[in-house]
Amino acid sequence: MTKSQKPKVVGVIGGGQLARMMLAPGIHLGLDVRVLAETEGSSAGLGATMVGDYNQLEVVLEFAKSVDVITFDHEHVPLSVLRELESRGFSVQPPSKALAFAQNKLHMRQRLTELGLPMPAWAEIQTAEQLEAFINQNGGVAILKTPIGGYDGKGVRVVRSVADAADWLSPNILESVGGSLLAEEKVDFVRELAQLSARRPNGEFESWPLVQTNQQNGVCAEVIAPAPNVDAERLQQAAEIARTVADGLGVTGVLAVEMFESRDGRLLINELAMRPHNSGHFSIEGSVTSQFEQHLRAVSDLPLGSTQARANCAVMVNLLGVDDQNDFVSRFGAAMQAHPLAKFHTYGKGARKGRKMGHVTVLADSAELALEQARAAAAVLRD
Amino acid sequence: MTKSQKPKVVGVIGGGQLARMMLAPGIHLGLDVRVLAETEGSSAGLGATMVGDYNQLEVVLEFAKSVDVITFDHEHVPLSVLRELESRGFSVQPPSKALAFAQNKLHMRQRLTELGLPMPAWAEIQTAEQLEAFINQNGGVAILKTPIGGYDGKGVRVVRSVADAADWLSPNILESVGGSLLAEEKVDFVRELAQLSARRPNGEFESWPLVQTNQQNGVCAEVIAPAPNVDAERLQQAAEIARTVADGLGVTGVLAVEMFESRDGRLLINELAMRPHNSGHFSIEGSVTSQFEQHLRAVSDLPLGSTQARANCAVMVNLLGVDDQNDFVSRFGAAMQAHPLAKFHTYGKGARKGRKMGHVTVLADSAELALEQARAAAAVLRD
Repeated sequence: MTKSQKPKVVGVIGGGQLARMMLAPGIHLGLDVRVLAETEGSSAGLGATMVGDYNQLEVVLEFAKSVDVITFDHEHVPLSVLRELESRGFSVQPPSKALAFAQNKLHMRQRLTELGLPMPAWAEIQTAEQLEAFINQNGGVAILKTPIGGYDGKGVRVVRSVADAADWLSPNILESVGGSLLAEEKVDFVRELAQLSARRPNGEFESWPLVQTNQQNGVCAEVIAPAPNVDAERLQQAAEIARTVADGLGVTGVLAVEMFESRDGRLLINELAMRPHNSGHFSIEGSVTSQFEQHLRAVSDLPLGSTQARANCAVMVNLLGVDDQNDFVSRFGAAMQAHPLAKFHTYGKGARKGRKMGHVTVLADSAELALEQARAAAAVLRD
Repeated sequence: MTKSQKPKVVGVIGGGQLARMMLAPGIHLGLDVRVLAETEGSSAGLGATMVGDYNQLEVVLEFAKSVDVITFDHEHVPLSVLRELESRGFSVQPPSKALAFAQNKLHMRQRLTELGLPMPAWAEIQTAEQLEAFINQNGGVAILKTPIGGYDGKGVRVVRSVADAADWLSPNILESVGGSLLAEEKVDFVRELAQLSARRPNGEFESWPLVQTNQQNGVCAEVIAPAPNVDAERLQQAAEIARTVADGLGVTGVLAVEMFESRDGRLLINELAMRPHNSGHFSIEGSVTSQFEQHLRAVSDLPLGSTQARANCAVMVNLLGVDDQNDFVSRFGAAMQAHPLAKFHTYGKGARKGRKMGHVTVLADSAELALEQARAAAAVLRD
């Protein structure tokens, strides 16, 4: 007879690509990653041990009983469900008190303001008068957001007058998004950046180098790691912002802080994500420890790994669906033939225009080289 | 409705750690890796879609019907079973004609001799007289091997007289190992090396840099990649040997050629393995394309990836079981704390003395640094 300690079981709610990409480091580390998927045949289907609705307490409770810790592929599990899990003694990482800020952009702004962190001017909006005043104070334009329910550009609108927001200000819609809207200054930014980090329940913290994210139509299209032309002081500042957020909000696991670099050189916090994030996919090949391994370590209360880079530069290009035919995978052969240095990732999802279907990563000595190769490989897959 | 081409299904016979480590690149590449495991709860259990005896034709046939291509975690599937599969039109990679040489060391020596490749002096032995003559011609000592059934030092014996081999020369045993023994010159070697490569059915070929393997009791204990103190001409020669073997034997997928470096500076072929191999585990982190990804690409007839190194040096240290208690995984936390740069791999197997339980890899600027760190991390896990 041989003995073996049972592997720690990490339960991931949500069967998307983030859960899928946790499976590989789980295999190597001997963590049993089990997924509660929304549907059969999900992106993380290989790890799915249960299919059900994460909005239903009884479903999530049943899943929780089969794992040692609960974590997430997305931020949409109702706080009421998570609080009930916690009250019954289940470990939820990140905890509901942290996720409350990820789920409500208004509460997030309030908390970041208390922490003295740099961000765009903002205001809570409940009336047309408040919105008009904010627009007038901020150069005639505002970014209006629904505090809850938004992602990838959804629930966000550029408004130049109260008329642009008349529907959102109606009592019914206002109530459905939490009773208030969030108005933010439209930042005159030169680029968008993201600071990836991870925090363990005991406070241990690691951050990756600041990256540049190139967005298209509100969706991340490319990531350059590290962000080009950033001095050491700025890198340090970005990492400190992430640490203050992680500590201040009690985040565990991976935290992505999306930021604007303003024309006058400031870093301003845009959005937060308390899970592995599109801006960190480069780390699968580009870092000693990928965001997916680090997330598993952090939520399992294991020591964090080094975030040191494996090359001068890594570039990730998203494979966004071009139509309902091209799943990219069937063209991997052609792209592999032309680009032996490129790393290809599919999420195993059906083709749909605009959908995040996979990504390509290239490591190189310079950002120019990596960008050129990653874009060329992605172009073979798209065309 | 969205459309998606069905992923190519790679069937792996054998549920060991090699199959387990194919799962991760399968996830990224969108290949559906399915495993025919010997038992429930195997190392590659996450991918197991069937449990059964690979010696039974009907079991393997049923498995074959569920996949697009058959490949292997080990070389023990009977040739008769594989030939039957091929005759029914199933794709077997590597094909039975190649595996015939991996399964019979005598046939392997005969074929390598026809190809003019460098190796120790050898002879087919059927009688005590033949063995005595060989010992006398080779300095009073020979390495005697059973042509079939040996691995990791099993089926191998150092003999200095016929008396040392009396049992193996008995008619019963002789018949059970194929009717002959294989005698080989005991090479005066300074170290052991391994040349990893991969070949696609169309002949496309890629090789990794030559590595040094440090053996303990006939089992691989450490791998240093690339092998230190090897000049460019020797690297080229080793790669050419692998190419000649792969082409000459019709190998597809990963091929490992284990070699001796003799005291007088020659490379001599020791053993072959037609599958991912312990000497290539470093490539998971150390190479642009790991041996596991490359094997999946090759047997799926996809273009091969770059074998370029991600660092000056990679060192892999095997975690060989120390007793029937320590599964190493329960000590990962302590080792991670002390060694944030080390990469930890478990095979999810029960603890047993001498068993290959996992490995640790460290990439560094020099072999000395990588060796020091990888050994130190492994020591934390053992002690």
